[in-house]
Amino acid sequence: MGNGKGAAEVICVGTELLLGDILNGNARYLAQELAALGIPHYYQTVVGDNPNRIQRALAIACERSRLILFTGGLGPTPDDLTTEAIADFFDAPLIEWPNVVEDIRKKYASIGVAPTDSSFKQALQPQGAELLPNNSGTAPGMIWEARPGLVLMTFPGVPREMKGMWSETSVPWLKQRGWSQGTFASRTLKFHGIGESTLAEQVAPYFERENPTVAPYAGDGEVRLRVTARAETEAEAIALIDPVAKELEAVGGDHYFGADEQTLATVVGELLLGRGETLAVAESCTGGGLGQRLTDVPGSSSYFWGGVISYDNSVKQNLLGVEAEVLEKQGAVSEVVAEQMAQGVRAALKTSWGIGITGIAGPGGGSDEKPVGLVYIGIAGPDGSVKAVKCLFGQRERGVIRDRAALEALNLLRLALA
Amino acid sequence: MGNGKGAAEVICVGTELLLGDILNGNARYLAQELAALGIPHYYQTVVGDNPNRIQRALAIACERSRLILFTGGLGPTPDDLTTEAIADFFDAPLIEWPNVVEDIRKKYASIGVAPTDSSFKQALQPQGAELLPNNSGTAPGMIWEARPGLVLMTFPGVPREMKGMWSETSVPWLKQRGWSQGTFASRTLKFHGIGESTLAEQVAPYFERENPTVAPYAGDGEVRLRVTARAETEAEAIALIDPVAKELEAVGGDHYFGADEQTLATVVGELLLGRGETLAVAESCTGGGLGQRLTDVPGSSSYFWGGVISYDNSVKQNLLGVEAEVLEKQGAVSEVVAEQMAQGVRAALKTSWGIGITGIAGPGGGSDEKPVGLVYIGIAGPDGSVKAVKCLFGQRERGVIRDRAALEALNLLRLALA
Repeated sequence: MGNGKGAAEVICVGTELLLGDILNGNARYLAQELAALGIPHYYQTVVGDNPNRIQRALAIACERSRLILFTGGLGPTPDDLTTEAIADFFDAPLIEWPNVVEDIRKKYASIGVAPTDSSFKQALQPQGAELLPNNSGTAPGMIWEARPGLVLMTFPGVPREMKGMWSETSVPWLKQRGWSQGTFASRTLKFHGIGESTLAEQVAPYFERENPTVAPYAGDGEVRLRVTARAETEAEAIALIDPVAKELEAVGGDHYFGADEQTLATVVGELLLGRGETLAVAESCTGGGLGQRLTDVPGSSSYFWGGVISYDNSVKQNLLGVEAEVLEKQGAVSEVVAEQMAQGVRAALKTSWGIGITGIAGPGGGSDEKPVGLVYIGIAGPDGSVKAVKCLFGQRERGVIRDRAALEALNLLRLALA
Repeated sequence: MGNGKGAAEVICVGTELLLGDILNGNARYLAQELAALGIPHYYQTVVGDNPNRIQRALAIACERSRLILFTGGLGPTPDDLTTEAIADFFDAPLIEWPNVVEDIRKKYASIGVAPTDSSFKQALQPQGAELLPNNSGTAPGMIWEARPGLVLMTFPGVPREMKGMWSETSVPWLKQRGWSQGTFASRTLKFHGIGESTLAEQVAPYFERENPTVAPYAGDGEVRLRVTARAETEAEAIALIDPVAKELEAVGGDHYFGADEQTLATVVGELLLGRGETLAVAESCTGGGLGQRLTDVPGSSSYFWGGVISYDNSVKQNLLGVEAEVLEKQGAVSEVVAEQMAQGVRAALKTSWGIGITGIAGPGGGSDEKPVGLVYIGIAGPDGSVKAVKCLFGQRERGVIRDRAALEALNLLRLALA
């Protein structure tokens, strides 16, 4: 790691962050941007609109980082204290920038408002700092080598202004001065139906690699491996990723389903499109969640024709043709009902494939024989065959069981289509 | 400020945060919760999955905070290092909790998977720590007074698990030990169909109040006002909130729909239950999202019977009885089709009410006459009447338009039922 210059640190200033009024989207944006530039970044700090605490955070950052990115606290109100706190920390006088004074006058005039005295506070920067222009607001920031080898940048907290200033001025500045050496590229491999720890054990030796690096993470019922490489050019970085990704995909086998922006719904969509086939769904316990995932994909109307939310048993009978006798003898949550739902919706909507989901999402409705988390998923295919799979998602929350059931249905269809 | 115990600090552990892969929703949640408890909170730190840097962040936090909340790094993989790093920092041996070992075995068994050796790492906690149980995942956390007057708590990074553990165990623990002096109570009032700035202007004088305080925030297409009071007892705090909340509800008028855990889906459910009526939905552009919202509510099967996802026009005709001529002349996205869908699904499922949604979620499929964001919502009532409303959600993202359409449909039904 390292670019020869040192690591970056993000310090977000704003009491609204400490009260939880807003999500810290600025920290995420800068994190993504630093990763793309290959600038290492080990710490983020959030601190309130308080000059002493801003200075304490700055003192810590100076010890461990060489590029300190501040967001927030540059505006005209008494709460905006970042610039003064930084100047005071380094014992630097504040200097007024006449062109910024002029710019503030013009921007206020353009909206027909008289600037207050405090507006001109935004024209002050510590002596020695370069101006970091703000083309969409009144508060500029600064780029300042406050000590040899220690660079500070300040940005307003307004995301749009911060992003514009970062990409228009900061990124070129950093590239020109050698902060971004080479290029980083990464690929996220996605797996379904295998636990995080099981996959991690199978690919453990890869976690020791240096370039590309491999790291696991889990989220939303998916397990992911992120492969990241560094090289002179993007093409070279991708060439480093490709063979390792192939090996990891092979280890994952059937569990591997896609990379990066791909989801189970997009993969299923691509497979259906490739085969010129169509799909309909019959949902009981997921209540529309499978249809929603499928139709999250733009263009899904080419292969997804719709479905029936058969929450009540009367709907299972009347619209899907599930037999009353089966419902009575086997119960609504049973293998046969899942199969009849899949076949019924395929027939009613005249599609190639049909999926039927019936289960107990809880928290009520479970029994010893049929516990919460029991879900049957039926898949009816274009050859007229049908098969149901029994899933046990455990005593989880209602929302989790419903999500897992929808994902599992997509995965079963993916395996049937592949 | 101050509760006599000292300030809290949040340390989020996760390289995925430093790469910008995810937003730091955990920090925001804990910030909101600390504010509600009246526990001061001056710093948040984000650090990667690296034991040295976790320990450096911990060393700094010990100097300035008395309650340190860790999220992330409790799982079974080699990257999950938080517990070890903390134990090592305080020179405490790790102790295995037999009941957690047993619990891990059971949770794996309930999903039919064999636990790996590394799974049991999650049963280790530093000697002297109390267990912080995790009822929805395998990784518990700890509550540990590591030094006199210094309390550490650890939570997994999975938001659902962290939130459950926080509210079920940490909050009662903190209250019992006097971290939250006096009692804070708050109520979040929810509004639909009014902009944040419009509502904020109408209730501006309330933002100056001290006890209770009133603060606005927006999220997920809802506008909310949070009323927070501090008093000796909860009953006294609620007595302070009640009159102010009533005034704010009156200002909101029809736009006010509920408080706290209530959602448009629960409110609609309560209204339907109260009237002994039932509902069915016909969804085109939302693709199941309305059904999913309705069935997110436990017990919704008492009033929600199901629906038809009529993504393809053939489904609108065959299952809902939308007329071919209307589809051809008016187009699928039209007032008449929304009405016929609502009536059709009400008739097919034999329910009191029917909702029909048809629109253009984009990004493709828009025209000058029918732009992306145009949605018609039809409501058919028990008296046989039907009425469609035209909505323009603007050139927003596909997911946003779909969410707004589902919420608007629930709101229209709420107004029809009220």
